[in-house]
Amino acid sequence: MSSIPSVRPLAEIRTEIDAIDAEILRLINRRAQCAEEVAKAKIADGEQGTFYRPDREAMVLRRIKDLNRGPLPDPTAMRFFRELMSACLALEKPLEVAFLGPEGTFSQQAVFKHFGSSVNTQPVAAISDVFNAVELDKCHFGVVPVENSTEGVINHTLDRFLMSPLRICGEVEVRVHQNLMGHAASLSEIREIFSHQQSLAQCRLWLDRHLPQVKVTAVSSNAEAARLASLDKHAAAIAGVAAAEVYQLPVLETSIEDQANNTTRFIVIGKQDSAPTGKDKTSLVFSTGNQPGALYKALESFAKFGIGMVNIESRPSRQGLWEYVFFIDIDGHGADPKVAEALGLLRANVNMLKLLGSYPKAVL
Amino acid sequence: MSSIPSVRPLAEIRTEIDAIDAEILRLINRRAQCAEEVAKAKIADGEQGTFYRPDREAMVLRRIKDLNRGPLPDPTAMRFFRELMSACLALEKPLEVAFLGPEGTFSQQAVFKHFGSSVNTQPVAAISDVFNAVELDKCHFGVVPVENSTEGVINHTLDRFLMSPLRICGEVEVRVHQNLMGHAASLSEIREIFSHQQSLAQCRLWLDRHLPQVKVTAVSSNAEAARLASLDKHAAAIAGVAAAEVYQLPVLETSIEDQANNTTRFIVIGKQDSAPTGKDKTSLVFSTGNQPGALYKALESFAKFGIGMVNIESRPSRQGLWEYVFFIDIDGHGADPKVAEALGLLRANVNMLKLLGSYPKAVL
Repeated sequence: MSSIPSVRPLAEIRTEIDAIDAEILRLINRRAQCAEEVAKAKIADGEQGTFYRPDREAMVLRRIKDLNRGPLPDPTAMRFFRELMSACLALEKPLEVAFLGPEGTFSQQAVFKHFGSSVNTQPVAAISDVFNAVELDKCHFGVVPVENSTEGVINHTLDRFLMSPLRICGEVEVRVHQNLMGHAASLSEIREIFSHQQSLAQCRLWLDRHLPQVKVTAVSSNAEAARLASLDKHAAAIAGVAAAEVYQLPVLETSIEDQANNTTRFIVIGKQDSAPTGKDKTSLVFSTGNQPGALYKALESFAKFGIGMVNIESRPSRQGLWEYVFFIDIDGHGADPKVAEALGLLRANVNMLKLLGSYPKAVL
Repeated sequence: MSSIPSVRPLAEIRTEIDAIDAEILRLINRRAQCAEEVAKAKIADGEQGTFYRPDREAMVLRRIKDLNRGPLPDPTAMRFFRELMSACLALEKPLEVAFLGPEGTFSQQAVFKHFGSSVNTQPVAAISDVFNAVELDKCHFGVVPVENSTEGVINHTLDRFLMSPLRICGEVEVRVHQNLMGHAASLSEIREIFSHQQSLAQCRLWLDRHLPQVKVTAVSSNAEAARLASLDKHAAAIAGVAAAEVYQLPVLETSIEDQANNTTRFIVIGKQDSAPTGKDKTSLVFSTGNQPGALYKALESFAKFGIGMVNIESRPSRQGLWEYVFFIDIDGHGADPKVAEALGLLRANVNMLKLLGSYPKAVL
């Protein structure tokens, strides 16, 4: 707008803001009362276990996105309601969520992004322990990493799924960053860069552009790289921020990874199935025999019904020579008629088929 | 309640929740419009620089606490409005806040706790750089650690203040934890514990109770402790979670510090003064001569007017032999008549007096 808008006096605007705040406060508390009532209604219906419903939460957030006319951006409004639902749920029964610790990691970020901050997080020492915690009812849900956009699939998680009765009931993506750290006063003082080979690969373009003449040395881990960099003021390391904190290394450049969308995908595991929301994914694992074209024939089931495949990953099975299992994510919910038909056809063409779960696509 | 409450059907409650959500969404957006109007009114009044007002934010949060009747707990409701104010402010002009990096540290937690998550955080390499960033207008505000409840005062911050024209405009406290980490399958397998002397001291009671027979070795840093622990499955380290992440050490026990209230206090530095809110602190630094009783006489100024002293810290001045400067936090705002009188009296009894700022006491 080029015209100068007429404005009310500051005091008048603030009086309106105070009135709005009081009304928002009343409404969020009224919403919390309703949530308590929902919990009671569920208990009356004999549904104690299902007080957290990922499908319902996904639909609430998508509705907020549809209704939002601004000026607050959609992600801001959605985060707001994510926190509100989290707080309402915690009133009734705080969710216990296991994750691959320690606290402060990307895994914990994923927990908060999916469940909001009003949950109790239980750090455990290994991916398998996340499964254990949920299988043994020590936690309601678990969050495990399943895929990094640069490093690929996290095999521990897939292997553990083969032995678990747990279901996937959600997914969440978290951005991860690489950083250049060291005691050099400027980039021009750096003579050597240490990092793990994988991290070096993730930052190759940045290094070529900014430090083309500098010696690059691959070491066993980013932790070792940070340690070496801490000993020499002409050395630098590429590593995550935790390493900089541990070695008190100044961060010289942040987010130097070449792929701007360097993300880690996490899945939420639990004991309950998620109802269809209209925008769902289904994860499954199957194995075929060794006859030629077996995988092709299996995948035909999805093509025939026009079902999109999001991911496919093959892993050696531990149960027989030359046998592979395939992990696949497809579009749609197992309760969708087309998906159900495709899965029926697939089942006829494979040795083993296990549905890992249908769940809402990541919303935030 | 012992009687079974009568409950509405689930669908009916959800219909009400959906209606409440739509109304909350409308109100938070209306609030954002009002915030935009406030910014315009301030520009019309020639007040561009003061779009963020720590005093106003503190008063909004305290009012929420006063008005809140639950069922949402006060801290939950206040965090909600903290985020809402942060999001509203970001619409107009996202705040740039410098902090002692890297990202993911307690310092960044302090930034988000004070400003909400809708700010741009700028990690810098040293405490002095936080001051530089604000002094040179690269950032609107900075957040620096000033005191750890176990380790004491952070001297870098106090020393830098002596040379800076910046003002303190807020404070924020963050809980910090110590953790036991290592590859041992259980505590009974641990033969040796490494940590920095200070961290060992923070966990002495816990160690006496749980691992009284284990050899304890002080090393130069918690990073080194974690590295040593990573090499020996019968060793463990006491360190922050970042070290566990860097060395992929399972966290065996979390929060083993003896003092449950192990906190780090941060202050917010900027160029503007904060108006009185009724619950404020004032920070100041002064120096006395070397005559006996000089400090006592200086402090009499506060006693005489019944003003509480929260902290006092002495530091050697760099300007003369045997000269000390004293950093003091007192209750009240510099604009309060009693505080103003006490400061006037103090000024007459000291060689140098510098007011660092009056600001609202930490709210969350």
